[in-house]
Amino acid sequence: MEKRTELYRGKAKTVYTTDDPERLILHFRNDTSAFDGEKVEQLERKGMINNKFNNFIMAKLEAAGIATQTDKVLSETETLVKRLDMIPVECVVRNYAAGSLVRRLGVTEGQELTPATFELFLKDDALHDPMINESHAVVFGWATAEQLAQMKTLTGRVNEVLKQLFDDAGMLLVDFKLEFGVDANGTIVLGDEFSPDGCRLWDKETRKKLDKDRFRQGLGGVVEAYEEVAQRLGVSL
Amino acid sequence: MEKRTELYRGKAKTVYTTDDPERLILHFRNDTSAFDGEKVEQLERKGMINNKFNNFIMAKLEAAGIATQTDKVLSETETLVKRLDMIPVECVVRNYAAGSLVRRLGVTEGQELTPATFELFLKDDALHDPMINESHAVVFGWATAEQLAQMKTLTGRVNEVLKQLFDDAGMLLVDFKLEFGVDANGTIVLGDEFSPDGCRLWDKETRKKLDKDRFRQGLGGVVEAYEEVAQRLGVSL
Repeated sequence: MEKRTELYRGKAKTVYTTDDPERLILHFRNDTSAFDGEKVEQLERKGMINNKFNNFIMAKLEAAGIATQTDKVLSETETLVKRLDMIPVECVVRNYAAGSLVRRLGVTEGQELTPATFELFLKDDALHDPMINESHAVVFGWATAEQLAQMKTLTGRVNEVLKQLFDDAGMLLVDFKLEFGVDANGTIVLGDEFSPDGCRLWDKETRKKLDKDRFRQGLGGVVEAYEEVAQRLGVSL
Repeated sequence: MEKRTELYRGKAKTVYTTDDPERLILHFRNDTSAFDGEKVEQLERKGMINNKFNNFIMAKLEAAGIATQTDKVLSETETLVKRLDMIPVECVVRNYAAGSLVRRLGVTEGQELTPATFELFLKDDALHDPMINESHAVVFGWATAEQLAQMKTLTGRVNEVLKQLFDDAGMLLVDFKLEFGVDANGTIVLGDEFSPDGCRLWDKETRKKLDKDRFRQGLGGVVEAYEEVAQRLGVSL
Protein backbone atom coordinates (compact mmCIF):
# COMPACT_ATOMS: atom_id res chain seq x y z
CA MET A 1 0.00 0.00 0.00
CA GLU A 2 1.45 3.37 -1.11
CA LYS A 3 0.94 6.88 0.27
CA ARG A 4 -1.07 9.12 -2.06
CA THR A 5 -2.27 12.58 -0.98
CA GLU A 6 -1.34 14.26 2.31
CA LEU A 7 -4.67 14.50 4.13
CA TYR A 8 -3.61 16.13 7.40
CA ARG A 9 -0.29 17.20 8.90
CA GLY A 10 -0.36 17.15 12.69
CA LYS A 11 2.39 18.23 15.04
CA ALA A 12 4.06 14.79 15.14
CA LYS A 13 2.32 12.67 12.49
CA THR A 14 1.18 13.07 8.89
CA VAL A 15 -1.87 11.24 7.55
CA TYR A 16 -1.97 10.12 3.90
CA THR A 17 -4.68 8.66 1.71
CA THR A 18 -4.07 5.34 -0.07
CA ASP A 19 -5.68 3.68 -3.09
CA ASP A 20 -8.11 2.03 -0.68
CA PRO A 21 -10.72 4.64 0.39
CA GLU A 22 -11.10 2.82 3.72
CA ARG A 23 -7.39 2.86 4.59
CA LEU A 24 -4.99 5.66 5.53
CA ILE A 25 -1.30 5.72 6.33
CA LEU A 26 0.03 7.32 9.52
CA HIS A 27 3.58 8.56 9.24
CA PHE A 28 5.25 9.05 12.63
CA ARG A 29 7.70 11.93 12.27
CA ASN A 30 10.66 12.86 14.50
CA ASP A 31 9.08 16.27 15.21
CA THR A 32 8.50 16.76 18.90
CA SER A 33 6.40 19.73 19.97
CA ALA A 34 5.14 21.25 23.19
CA PHE A 35 3.25 24.35 24.36
CA ASP A 36 0.87 24.42 21.37
CA GLY A 37 3.73 24.02 18.94
CA GLU A 38 5.84 26.87 20.36
CA LYS A 39 8.71 24.50 21.16
CA VAL A 40 9.52 22.12 18.31
CA GLU A 41 12.57 19.89 17.83
CA GLN A 42 13.59 16.96 15.69
CA LEU A 43 14.45 14.01 17.89
CA GLU A 44 16.30 11.29 16.02
CA ARG A 45 14.57 7.84 16.14
CA LYS A 46 11.45 9.17 17.88
CA GLY A 47 9.16 8.53 14.90
CA MET A 48 10.31 4.92 14.67
CA ILE A 49 9.98 4.32 18.42
CA ASN A 50 6.51 5.82 18.61
CA ASN A 51 5.34 3.89 15.56
CA LYS A 52 6.44 0.56 17.04
CA PHE A 53 5.34 1.48 20.55
CA ASN A 54 1.90 2.49 19.31
CA ASN A 55 1.47 -0.74 17.38
CA PHE A 56 2.47 -2.75 20.45
CA ILE A 57 -0.05 -0.93 22.66
CA MET A 58 -2.86 -1.08 20.10
CA ALA A 59 -2.32 -4.84 19.72
CA LYS A 60 -2.64 -5.23 23.51
CA LEU A 61 -5.87 -3.23 23.46
CA GLU A 62 -7.27 -5.23 20.52
CA ALA A 63 -6.45 -8.41 22.47
CA ALA A 64 -8.48 -6.98 25.35
CA GLY A 65 -11.47 -6.52 23.02
CA ILE A 66 -11.10 -2.80 22.33
CA ALA A 67 -11.51 -1.90 18.64
CA THR A 68 -8.65 0.27 17.35
CA GLN A 69 -7.84 2.03 14.10
CA THR A 70 -4.59 0.13 13.59
CA ASP A 71 -4.33 -2.32 10.71
CA LYS A 72 -0.63 -3.17 10.26
CA VAL A 73 2.89 -1.78 10.33
CA LEU A 74 4.14 -0.80 6.86
CA SER A 75 7.64 0.43 7.64
CA GLU A 76 9.82 1.71 10.49
CA THR A 77 7.76 4.91 10.72
CA GLU A 78 4.50 4.10 8.90
CA THR A 79 1.36 2.23 9.85
CA LEU A 80 -1.72 1.38 7.81
CA VAL A 81 -4.91 2.32 9.66
CA LYS A 82 -8.66 2.17 9.07
CA ARG A 83 -10.18 5.43 7.92
CA LEU A 84 -12.32 6.96 10.69
CA ASP A 85 -14.43 10.07 10.91
CA MET A 86 -12.50 11.55 13.85
CA ILE A 87 -14.37 13.12 16.78
CA PRO A 88 -12.63 16.44 17.67
CA VAL A 89 -12.74 15.74 21.41
CA GLU A 90 -9.76 14.39 23.37
CA CYS A 91 -10.43 12.10 26.33
CA VAL A 92 -7.96 12.42 29.21
CA VAL A 93 -7.70 10.06 32.18
CA ARG A 94 -5.53 10.88 35.16
CA ASN A 95 -4.44 8.30 37.74
CA TYR A 96 -2.04 10.75 39.42
CA ALA A 97 -2.11 14.57 39.46
CA ALA A 98 0.36 16.19 37.07
CA GLY A 99 0.63 18.86 34.38
CA SER A 100 -2.27 21.21 33.70
CA LEU A 101 -4.40 19.69 36.47
CA VAL A 102 -1.84 20.75 39.08
CA ARG A 103 -1.68 24.29 37.68
CA ARG A 104 -5.43 24.74 37.21
CA LEU A 105 -6.67 23.20 40.46
CA GLY A 106 -3.77 23.89 42.80
CA VAL A 107 -3.39 20.23 43.77
CA THR A 108 -0.16 18.41 44.59
CA GLU A 109 1.82 16.77 41.78
CA GLY A 110 1.93 13.03 42.25
CA GLN A 111 -1.23 12.80 44.34
CA GLU A 112 -3.02 9.54 43.48
CA LEU A 113 -6.49 10.14 42.03
CA THR A 114 -9.01 7.50 43.10
CA PRO A 115 -11.27 7.25 41.20
CA ALA A 116 -9.27 8.41 38.17
CA THR A 117 -10.48 11.71 36.69
CA PHE A 118 -11.94 11.85 33.20
CA GLU A 119 -11.72 15.07 31.18
CA LEU A 120 -12.72 16.21 27.71
CA PHE A 121 -10.76 18.75 25.67
CA LEU A 122 -11.74 20.31 22.37
CA LYS A 123 -9.08 19.53 19.74
CA ASP A 124 -8.51 23.06 18.45
CA ASP A 125 -4.98 24.50 18.28
CA ALA A 126 -6.17 28.09 17.77
CA LEU A 127 -8.17 27.89 21.02
CA HIS A 128 -5.34 25.99 22.80
CA ASP A 129 -7.42 22.81 23.23
CA PRO A 130 -9.78 24.15 25.93
CA MET A 131 -11.34 21.85 28.50
CA ILE A 132 -15.00 21.23 27.72
CA ASN A 133 -17.72 19.05 29.16
CA GLU A 134 -20.39 16.75 27.73
CA SER A 135 -22.96 19.54 27.43
CA HIS A 136 -20.63 21.63 25.24
CA ALA A 137 -19.82 18.68 22.98
CA VAL A 138 -23.52 17.92 22.52
CA VAL A 139 -24.82 21.45 21.95
CA PHE A 140 -22.06 22.37 19.48
CA GLY A 141 -22.36 19.04 17.64
CA TRP A 142 -18.84 17.76 18.37
CA ALA A 143 -20.18 14.41 19.63
CA THR A 144 -23.53 12.95 20.64
CA ALA A 145 -24.33 12.03 24.24
CA GLU A 146 -24.28 8.35 23.20
CA GLN A 147 -20.84 8.69 21.59
CA LEU A 148 -19.48 10.47 24.67
CA ALA A 149 -20.82 7.74 26.95
CA GLN A 150 -19.11 5.09 24.80
CA MET A 151 -15.87 7.08 24.70
CA LYS A 152 -15.91 7.34 28.49
CA THR A 153 -16.51 3.61 28.93
CA LEU A 154 -13.81 2.69 26.39
CA THR A 155 -11.33 5.10 27.98
CA GLY A 156 -11.96 3.49 31.36
CA ARG A 157 -11.30 0.04 29.87
CA VAL A 158 -8.10 1.25 28.19
CA ASN A 159 -6.98 2.62 31.55
CA GLU A 160 -7.56 -0.71 33.29
CA VAL A 161 -5.59 -2.64 30.63
CA LEU A 162 -2.69 -0.18 30.39
CA LYS A 163 -2.33 0.60 34.11
CA GLN A 164 -1.68 -3.10 34.66
CA LEU A 165 0.62 -3.39 31.65
CA PHE A 166 2.83 -0.50 32.82
CA ASP A 167 2.66 -1.57 36.45
CA ASP A 168 3.99 -5.01 35.49
CA ALA A 169 6.92 -3.23 33.82
CA GLY A 170 7.66 -1.08 36.89
CA MET A 171 5.96 2.11 35.72
CA LEU A 172 3.06 4.30 36.81
CA LEU A 173 0.62 5.32 34.08
CA VAL A 174 0.09 8.86 35.38
CA ASP A 175 -2.27 10.13 32.68
CA PHE A 176 -2.99 9.78 28.97
CA LYS A 177 -4.97 11.21 26.10
CA LEU A 178 -7.10 9.22 23.66
CA GLU A 179 -8.90 10.20 20.47
CA PHE A 180 -11.79 8.31 18.96
CA GLY A 181 -13.46 8.19 15.56
CA VAL A 182 -16.49 6.62 13.93
CA ASP A 183 -16.00 3.86 11.36
CA ALA A 184 -18.12 3.13 8.27
CA ASN A 185 -20.57 1.14 10.45
CA GLY A 186 -21.03 3.98 12.92
CA THR A 187 -18.99 2.19 15.61
CA ILE A 188 -16.78 4.20 17.97
CA VAL A 189 -13.18 3.08 17.42
CA LEU A 190 -10.00 4.12 19.23
CA GLY A 191 -7.96 6.21 16.79
CA ASP A 192 -4.78 8.27 16.64
CA GLU A 193 -1.88 6.90 18.71
CA PHE A 194 -0.77 5.88 22.19
CA SER A 195 2.87 6.81 22.84
CA PRO A 196 4.99 8.66 25.44
CA ASP A 197 4.13 11.82 23.43
CA GLY A 198 0.54 11.68 24.73
CA CYS A 199 0.81 10.14 28.18
CA ARG A 200 2.83 10.48 31.36
CA LEU A 201 4.83 7.52 32.65
CA TRP A 202 6.91 7.52 35.81
CA ASP A 203 9.24 4.91 37.18
CA LYS A 204 7.31 3.24 40.01
CA GLU A 205 10.13 3.49 42.53
CA THR A 206 11.99 6.70 41.69
CA ARG A 207 9.14 8.54 39.92
CA LYS A 208 11.63 9.48 37.19
CA LYS A 209 9.72 10.92 34.25
CA LEU A 210 9.84 8.71 31.15
CA ASP A 211 7.60 10.70 28.80
CA LYS A 212 7.32 13.97 26.86
CA ASP A 213 7.63 15.97 30.09
CA ARG A 214 11.39 15.38 29.66
CA PHE A 215 11.10 17.47 26.48
CA ARG A 216 8.64 20.05 27.89
CA GLN A 217 10.77 20.58 30.97
CA GLY A 218 14.14 20.39 29.19
CA LEU A 219 15.26 17.40 31.27
CA GLY A 220 17.14 15.81 28.37
CA GLY A 221 17.30 12.12 27.48
CA VAL A 222 13.91 12.20 25.81
CA VAL A 223 14.42 9.50 23.20
CA GLU A 224 16.46 7.45 25.68
CA ALA A 225 13.46 7.49 28.05
CA TYR A 226 11.06 6.46 25.27
CA GLU A 227 13.43 3.60 24.42
CA GLU A 228 13.61 2.54 28.05
CA VAL A 229 9.81 2.41 28.24
CA ALA A 230 9.68 0.32 25.06
CA GLN A 231 12.38 -2.03 26.31
CA ARG A 232 10.72 -2.52 29.68
CA LEU A 233 7.49 -3.50 27.91
CA GLY A 234 9.28 -5.80 25.47
CA VAL A 235 8.64 -3.76 22.31
CA SER A 236 11.22 -4.81 19.70
CA LEU A 237 12.75 -1.68 18.21
CA MET B 1 -32.53 38.88 65.01
CA GLU B 2 -29.23 40.76 65.34
CA LYS B 3 -25.92 40.35 63.51
CA ARG B 4 -23.15 38.93 65.74
CA THR B 5 -19.78 37.86 64.30
CA GLU B 6 -18.70 38.39 60.71
CA LEU B 7 -18.37 34.86 59.34
CA TYR B 8 -17.34 35.54 55.76
CA ARG B 9 -16.86 38.66 53.66
CA GLY B 10 -17.44 38.00 49.96
CA LYS B 11 -17.02 40.44 47.10
CA ALA B 12 -20.60 41.77 47.32
CA LYS B 13 -22.10 40.28 50.49
CA THR B 14 -21.08 39.75 54.09
CA VAL B 15 -22.36 36.81 56.12
CA TYR B 16 -22.92 37.17 59.89
CA THR B 17 -23.76 34.74 62.63
CA THR B 18 -26.82 35.33 64.80
CA ASP B 19 -27.87 34.08 68.23
CA ASP B 20 -29.59 31.18 66.47
CA PRO B 21 -26.89 28.67 65.41
CA GLU B 22 -29.11 27.60 62.48
CA ARG B 23 -29.60 31.12 61.09
CA LEU B 24 -27.23 33.57 59.40
CA ILE B 25 -27.69 37.10 58.10
CA LEU B 26 -26.70 38.04 54.53
CA HIS B 27 -25.83 41.70 54.13
CA PHE B 28 -26.00 42.84 50.49
CA ARG B 29 -23.38 45.58 50.05
CA ASN B 30 -23.10 48.20 47.31
CA ASP B 31 -19.68 46.84 46.31
CA THR B 32 -19.65 45.73 42.71
CA SER B 33 -16.67 43.77 41.49
CA ALA B 34 -15.48 42.15 38.29
CA PHE B 35 -12.42 40.36 36.92
CA ASP B 36 -11.66 38.50 40.16
CA GLY B 37 -12.01 41.65 42.20
CA GLU B 38 -9.62 43.74 40.07
CA LYS B 39 -12.38 46.25 39.26
CA VAL B 40 -14.41 47.31 42.29
CA GLU B 41 -16.87 50.18 42.69
CA GLN B 42 -19.55 51.26 45.10
CA LEU B 43 -22.86 51.52 43.27
CA GLU B 44 -25.49 53.40 45.28
CA ARG B 45 -28.69 51.39 45.96
CA LYS B 46 -27.30 48.15 44.48
CA GLY B 47 -27.26 46.31 47.83
CA MET B 48 -30.90 47.18 48.44
CA ILE B 49 -31.99 46.21 44.92
CA ASN B 50 -30.15 42.88 44.99
CA ASN B 51 -31.51 42.04 48.44
CA LYS B 52 -35.11 42.61 47.37
CA PHE B 53 -34.59 41.06 43.95
CA ASN B 54 -33.03 37.95 45.49
CA ASN B 55 -35.90 37.56 47.94
CA PHE B 56 -38.42 37.89 45.10
CA ILE B 57 -36.68 35.22 43.01
CA MET B 58 -36.15 32.84 45.93
CA ALA B 59 -39.88 33.12 46.81
CA LYS B 60 -40.76 32.18 43.21
CA LEU B 61 -38.44 29.19 43.40
CA GLU B 62 -39.83 28.10 46.79
CA ALA B 63 -43.33 28.35 45.26
CA ALA B 64 -42.12 25.99 42.51
CA GLY B 65 -41.02 23.47 45.14
CA ILE B 66 -37.28 24.25 45.17
CA ALA B 67 -35.84 24.49 48.70
CA THR B 68 -33.83 27.69 49.22
CA GLN B 69 -31.71 29.12 51.99
CA THR B 70 -33.85 32.26 52.35
CA ASP B 71 -35.90 32.76 55.50
CA LYS B 72 -37.06 36.40 55.57
CA VAL B 73 -36.09 39.98 54.79
CA LEU B 74 -34.77 41.82 57.84
CA SER B 75 -34.04 45.26 56.38
CA GLU B 76 -33.41 47.05 53.11
CA THR B 77 -30.07 45.27 52.67
CA GLU B 78 -30.26 42.28 55.03
CA THR B 79 -31.89 38.87 54.85
CA LEU B 80 -32.11 36.09 57.40
CA VAL B 81 -31.11 32.74 55.90
CA LYS B 82 -30.77 29.14 57.01
CA ARG B 83 -27.26 28.08 57.82
CA LEU B 84 -25.91 25.67 55.19
CA ASP B 85 -22.66 23.84 54.80
CA MET B 86 -21.82 25.40 51.42
CA ILE B 87 -20.48 23.24 48.58
CA PRO B 88 -17.53 25.08 46.95
CA VAL B 89 -18.73 24.35 43.42
CA GLU B 90 -20.66 26.86 41.29
CA CYS B 91 -23.28 25.55 38.86
CA VAL B 92 -23.63 27.56 35.64
CA VAL B 93 -26.40 27.16 33.07
CA ARG B 94 -26.24 28.89 29.71
CA ASN B 95 -29.25 29.34 27.43
CA TYR B 96 -27.34 31.65 25.08
CA ALA B 97 -23.57 31.91 24.45
CA ALA B 98 -21.91 34.86 26.20
CA GLY B 99 -18.94 35.75 28.37
CA SER B 100 -16.22 33.21 29.06
CA LEU B 101 -17.86 30.54 26.91
CA VAL B 102 -17.47 32.75 23.82
CA ARG B 103 -13.81 33.43 24.62
CA ARG B 104 -12.91 29.86 25.53
CA LEU B 105 -14.72 27.99 22.77
CA GLY B 106 -14.71 30.56 19.97
CA VAL B 107 -18.48 30.47 19.52
CA THR B 108 -20.74 33.37 18.55
CA GLU B 109 -22.18 35.60 21.29
CA GLY B 110 -25.93 35.34 21.40
CA GLN B 111 -26.11 31.87 19.85
CA GLU B 112 -29.00 29.96 21.44
CA LEU B 113 -27.84 26.81 23.26
CA THR B 114 -30.32 23.95 22.97
CA PRO B 115 -30.06 22.01 25.17
CA ALA B 116 -28.69 24.52 27.67
CA THR B 117 -25.11 23.86 28.78
CA PHE B 118 -24.32 22.96 32.39
CA GLU B 119 -20.89 23.77 33.83
CA LEU B 120 -19.17 23.42 37.18
CA PHE B 121 -16.59 25.88 38.51
CA LEU B 122 -14.49 25.57 41.64
CA LYS B 123 -15.17 28.52 43.94
CA ASP B 124 -11.58 29.59 44.56
CA ASP B 125 -10.51 33.21 44.00
CA ALA B 126 -6.79 32.42 44.12
CA LEU B 127 -7.22 29.93 41.27
CA HIS B 128 -9.66 32.27 39.41
CA ASP B 129 -12.62 29.90 39.78
CA PRO B 130 -11.42 27.26 37.29
CA MET B 131 -13.87 25.14 35.34
CA ILE B 132 -13.99 21.60 36.70
CA ASN B 133 -16.05 18.51 36.02
CA GLU B 134 -17.82 15.91 38.15
CA SER B 135 -14.76 13.68 38.37
CA HIS B 136 -12.63 16.49 39.88
CA ALA B 137 -15.32 17.36 42.43
CA VAL B 138 -15.61 13.74 43.50
CA VAL B 139 -11.91 12.86 43.71
CA PHE B 140 -10.96 16.04 45.58
CA GLY B 141 -13.95 15.73 47.93
CA TRP B 142 -15.67 18.98 46.94
CA ALA B 143 -19.01 17.17 46.42
CA THR B 144 -20.23 13.60 46.11
CA ALA B 145 -21.56 12.17 42.85
CA GLU B 146 -25.04 12.09 44.42
CA GLN B 147 -24.85 15.73 45.46
CA LEU B 148 -23.67 16.75 41.99
CA ALA B 149 -26.54 14.85 40.38
CA GLN B 150 -29.03 16.64 42.65
CA MET B 151 -27.39 20.02 41.99
CA LYS B 152 -27.68 19.42 38.25
CA THR B 153 -31.35 18.43 38.48
CA LEU B 154 -32.18 21.40 40.72
CA THR B 155 -30.29 23.81 38.46
CA GLY B 156 -32.30 22.53 35.49
CA ARG B 157 -35.55 23.13 37.38
CA VAL B 158 -34.45 26.63 38.40
CA ASN B 159 -33.70 27.33 34.75
CA GLU B 160 -37.18 26.22 33.64
CA VAL B 161 -38.89 28.39 36.26
CA LEU B 162 -36.76 31.49 35.71
CA LYS B 163 -36.55 31.34 31.90
CA GLN B 164 -40.34 31.57 31.85
CA LEU B 165 -40.45 34.29 34.51
CA PHE B 166 -37.99 36.52 32.62
CA ASP B 167 -39.55 35.71 29.25
CA ASP B 168 -42.95 36.87 30.54
CA ALA B 169 -41.27 40.16 31.49
CA GLY B 170 -39.67 40.60 28.02
CA MET B 171 -36.19 39.37 28.93
CA LEU B 172 -33.88 36.53 27.93
CA LEU B 173 -32.22 34.64 30.77
CA VAL B 174 -28.86 34.23 29.02
CA ASP B 175 -26.98 32.43 31.80
CA PHE B 176 -26.73 32.26 35.58
CA LYS B 177 -24.69 30.86 38.44
CA LEU B 178 -26.08 28.99 41.44
CA GLU B 179 -24.47 27.78 44.65
CA PHE B 180 -25.81 25.02 46.85
CA GLY B 181 -25.28 23.90 50.41
CA VAL B 182 -26.25 21.04 52.67
CA ASP B 183 -28.67 21.68 55.55
CA ALA B 184 -28.71 20.02 58.97
CA ASN B 185 -30.73 17.10 57.51
CA GLY B 186 -28.24 16.50 54.71
CA THR B 187 -30.60 17.94 52.07
CA ILE B 188 -29.17 19.92 49.13
CA VAL B 189 -30.58 23.45 49.36
CA LEU B 190 -30.15 26.40 46.97
CA GLY B 191 -27.99 28.97 48.74
CA ASP B 192 -26.27 32.28 48.12
CA GLU B 193 -28.21 34.71 45.90
CA PHE B 194 -29.83 35.17 42.51
CA SER B 195 -29.39 38.72 41.22
CA PRO B 196 -28.18 40.57 38.09
CA ASP B 197 -24.69 40.31 39.67
CA GLY B 198 -24.64 36.57 38.95
CA CYS B 199 -26.66 36.15 35.78
CA ARG B 200 -26.99 37.67 32.31
CA LEU B 201 -30.30 39.19 31.25
CA TRP B 202 -30.95 40.74 27.85
CA ASP B 203 -33.98 42.62 26.60
CA LYS B 204 -35.81 40.12 24.37
CA GLU B 205 -36.26 42.55 21.46
CA THR B 206 -33.16 44.77 21.53
CA ARG B 207 -30.80 42.38 23.38
CA LYS B 208 -29.77 45.34 25.54
CA LYS B 209 -27.70 44.04 28.46
CA LEU B 210 -29.46 44.45 31.82
CA ASP B 211 -26.93 42.81 34.13
CA LYS B 212 -23.40 43.09 35.54
CA ASP B 213 -21.92 43.07 32.02
CA ARG B 214 -22.87 46.79 32.02
CA PHE B 215 -20.31 47.17 34.82
CA ARG B 216 -17.71 44.76 33.39
CA GLN B 217 -17.85 46.42 29.99
CA GLY B 218 -18.15 50.00 31.29
CA LEU B 219 -21.51 50.52 29.57
CA GLY B 220 -22.88 52.69 32.38
CA GLY B 221 -26.40 52.67 33.79
CA VAL B 222 -25.70 49.60 35.92
CA VAL B 223 -28.05 50.29 38.82
CA GLU B 224 -30.65 51.71 36.41
CA ALA B 225 -30.61 48.41 34.51
CA TYR B 226 -30.97 46.39 37.74
CA GLU B 227 -33.92 48.61 38.69
CA GLU B 228 -35.50 48.13 35.28
CA VAL B 229 -35.24 44.35 35.65
CA ALA B 230 -36.83 44.54 39.10
CA GLN B 231 -39.63 46.81 37.86
CA ARG B 232 -40.41 44.60 34.87
CA LEU B 233 -40.77 41.61 37.22
CA GLY B 234 -42.88 43.55 39.71
CA VAL B 235 -40.36 43.60 42.56
CA SER B 236 -41.29 46.46 44.92
CA LEU B 237 -38.15 48.47 45.69
